[in-house]
Amino acid sequence: MEHGAVRGIAFDLYGTLIDVNGVQEACGTVAQDPAAFTSLWRQKQLEYTFLRGLMGRYEDFWQVTEASLRYTLKRFSLQATERDRRRLMEAWLHLPPFPDVMATLPKLQGYALAVLSNGSPPMLEGVLANSGLTPSFRWVLSADAAKIYKPSPKVYALGPEGMGLPKEAILFVSSNAFDVAGAKAFGFPVCWLNRAGVPLDELGLEPDMMVRSFGELLPALER
Amino acid sequence: MEHGAVRGIAFDLYGTLIDVNGVQEACGTVAQDPAAFTSLWRQKQLEYTFLRGLMGRYEDFWQVTEASLRYTLKRFSLQATERDRRRLMEAWLHLPPFPDVMATLPKLQGYALAVLSNGSPPMLEGVLANSGLTPSFRWVLSADAAKIYKPSPKVYALGPEGMGLPKEAILFVSSNAFDVAGAKAFGFPVCWLNRAGVPLDELGLEPDMMVRSFGELLPALER
Repeated sequence: MEHGAVRGIAFDLYGTLIDVNGVQEACGTVAQDPAAFTSLWRQKQLEYTFLRGLMGRYEDFWQVTEASLRYTLKRFSLQATERDRRRLMEAWLHLPPFPDVMATLPKLQGYALAVLSNGSPPMLEGVLANSGLTPSFRWVLSADAAKIYKPSPKVYALGPEGMGLPKEAILFVSSNAFDVAGAKAFGFPVCWLNRAGVPLDELGLEPDMMVRSFGELLPALER
Repeated sequence: MEHGAVRGIAFDLYGTLIDVNGVQEACGTVAQDPAAFTSLWRQKQLEYTFLRGLMGRYEDFWQVTEASLRYTLKRFSLQATERDRRRLMEAWLHLPPFPDVMATLPKLQGYALAVLSNGSPPMLEGVLANSGLTPSFRWVLSADAAKIYKPSPKVYALGPEGMGLPKEAILFVSSNAFDVAGAKAFGFPVCWLNRAGVPLDELGLEPDMMVRSFGELLPALER
C-alpha cells in the first residue's frame, strides 16, 4: 500500500470509534449477566443485518437493534417494561468513544475524515453529538442510503460517492473483522484496528495494515 | 396454511436431518473442549456463508468449512497436522442422522422428498450415502447451483425448479431459524423443527407450523 496516496479516512463507528460494551451498564438493571446479555444482543444485531441483506428485506438499524433486543430478552427469559426497553435502546445514543479515539482524532485533521456505519442517520447523529465527536467528521455516511448493510459493496460505495475521492485514496478503518473483509473486497485500502487481539477471519482478504490501538494509526500512516 | 396443498417436502440437511454435533467426536483429539470448538466452527461456517453472499464472493461449502476450521484452530491456539485437519473435515461426510429421521422418513414417502442444502454436491452425496439416507430423496439440491447461500431467495428457488412443483406446494422443513425466515420470505410454506426449544428469531417472518421432533411432522401435516 502506498500510504502517500491516502487523502481521506473513513471510519466504522460501533466497536471502532465507539465502545458498544457501553450498553452493559444499562443492561445491568434487567439482566443478571450484563456481559452475556450485551454479547448476544450485539451478535443478533449483526446477524439480523446479514440475514436481512441476503433476504433483500432491509429495515433500518434502529429497528434491527430493537428486534435483536426483543430476541435477547426472550432468550434469557427476561421481562422488561416498555420503559426498560426504551432505556436500553437509548443507551445506543449515549455510547462512549474509546479514550484513544478522543486523543488521536485531532492529530488526523490533515485528512478528510468520515464515518461510514450501519447505524441509521438519527442513531449516528445522536451518538456522535452525545460523545462530542460531531465536529471531527466532515461526512457521516449511513448504510441507510444503500438500504442494505455491510459487507455489501453498495455500502462501501457510499464512501467515494460522499467524500468525492477515489476509493484508492480512502483508508477504511474498522475493528470488525467482517467489515475489514468487506471494505477490502470493495477495493479500499484497509486498516484493521484489532483491539481484541483476535486472529484474522479466513475470508481470503487481508488488511493493508493492522494496529492494536487507535493511537498507532497516525504512526502507521506516516511510516 | 392449507396442508392439503402440500405435494412435496424440501428438507434442510445440517441440523435438521443430520446432527452436526457429530463432529465433536473427531474434534476431541485436537481440542480440550470439543463442544466449544464445534460450536465456534459451526458459527464461523455459517457466518462465512452470510458474508460471502453479501460480498458476492462465493466459495463452495467444503472450502468455507475448511476456512472456518482454520479460523477455529487459530482462535483456540491449537496445532493440527494436515492429517488431523483432513480427519476433521471428513467427519462432515460421516455425520449421523437424527434417530427420529430414520424412523419417520419411510412414513413420508407419499410426498415428493428433496434435500435443499448449503452443502456442496460431493458433501451432500457423501453424507447421505454414509448415513443410508440416499434412497429416501428423489432430489438433492445444492446451493452450489446458485453460487450463493441461504437465506438468499436464489437458493430456495432451486426447490420449485428442481422438483417441478410450485413453491406453494412444497413444505420446507428446517431446524435453523435463519433458514425458516429465508424460506418463508421466499414464499414456501414452512415447518420449523425447533429441536432446541429456542425462541423464534425476530425477523418478522413466522413459520406456518412448528414441531419439536421429526416424528411430529406427519401428524402435523395430517391435522
